Amino acid sequence: MPYIPLKENLPGITGLLDYRQDTALPIRQLTQILLRGESTLTPGERELIATVVSSGNECKFCTAAHTAAATAFLHDPSIAEQVKQDISTAPVSEKMKALLTIASAVQKKGRLVTPEMAAAAREQGATDRELHDTVLIAALFSLYNRYVDGLASVTPAEPAFYHRLGDILLEKGYLPSTDRYSNL
Amino acid sequence: MPYIPLKENLPGITGLLDYRQDTALPIRQLTQILLRGESTLTPGERELIATVVSSGNECKFCTAAHTAAATAFLHDPSIAEQVKQDISTAPVSEKMKALLTIASAVQKKGRLVTPEMAAAAREQGATDRELHDTVLIAALFSLYNRYVDGLASVTPAEPAFYHRLGDILLEKGYLPSTDRYSNL
Repeated sequence: MPYIPLKENLPGITGLLDYRQDTALPIRQLTQILLRGESTLTPGERELIATVVSSGNECKFCTAAHTAAATAFLHDPSIAEQVKQDISTAPVSEKMKALLTIASAVQKKGRLVTPEMAAAAREQGATDRELHDTVLIAALFSLYNRYVDGLASVTPAEPAFYHRLGDILLEKGYLPSTDRYSNL
Repeated sequence: MPYIPLKENLPGITGLLDYRQDTALPIRQLTQILLRGESTLTPGERELIATVVSSGNECKFCTAAHTAAATAFLHDPSIAEQVKQDISTAPVSEKMKALLTIASAVQKKGRLVTPEMAAAAREQGATDRELHDTVLIAALFSLYNRYVDGLASVTPAEPAFYHRLGDILLEKGYLPSTDRYSNL
């Protein structure tokens, strides 16, 4: 049971973003810019970063939600699953492997990102902006994972819930909308 | 040396917020609402939450900056220092000890916040909003700490730098302004 009163029909992050909407707005805006804004990384690749970080932080709600969102974009459920299991053998580009390795270090602690990791990403063609965004997306999901679990928000058990949420995140993105969760 | 090109006169978080200003704006807005907006926690108490989390994440820049900001509000450098050493014996209210204990758990992992920690804070008079804001501030600084260290931004060595930054954070808060760092 959550540590503060949240609407029962809004599990996970959704109830928290509803609970304090003035803080929710910049969180949503930041997420929309980073995960859906202009970028040389696809939305599916950026959702994989969110997935790897949420998995490392053992946030079940966020992991299931962003696994579903990544899969909605990538049309292949095995990609997110393999990325969570082992980045080095997952079916993603060498550049994405290097960026996901950096994201995984950021998830544990910022100082664990080494010059060698940054150089390895550059060797695979990663740009300044891609390095920057990978670190900031990983940092943002370190926020989300703590927000969701630190207040013990509810984690639905049914896989169908996350399929619906993944489709909402693909179709509507992260900005607020009045009918946002009408299909959830 | 930072992993991406940042302005040399803007160390720590300042160069990162300058590097990508479209993502910086919602980060700044969220911080301003949480740390300076209306609250039953004082700005000094909220800066102590930022300090404890940054210290736990071993982010030297953020720890020094928010120690200085807390001290600018609380007029006693020993308070932030003692909070970093041992929350249980620090010269803060019993409610703040319970909230800082929750923040410290969030810093490590969201799931480490226990129902007993939430109940202990309530026994000392903590409200729903105070519990919520403590968790979200701790989550936000888990983002900042990773952003600053994950890209290897520069950490100035001189204590005087952080005294000036603490005064700026007291006088100007977190929103962008053109002359923001003219005294830094």
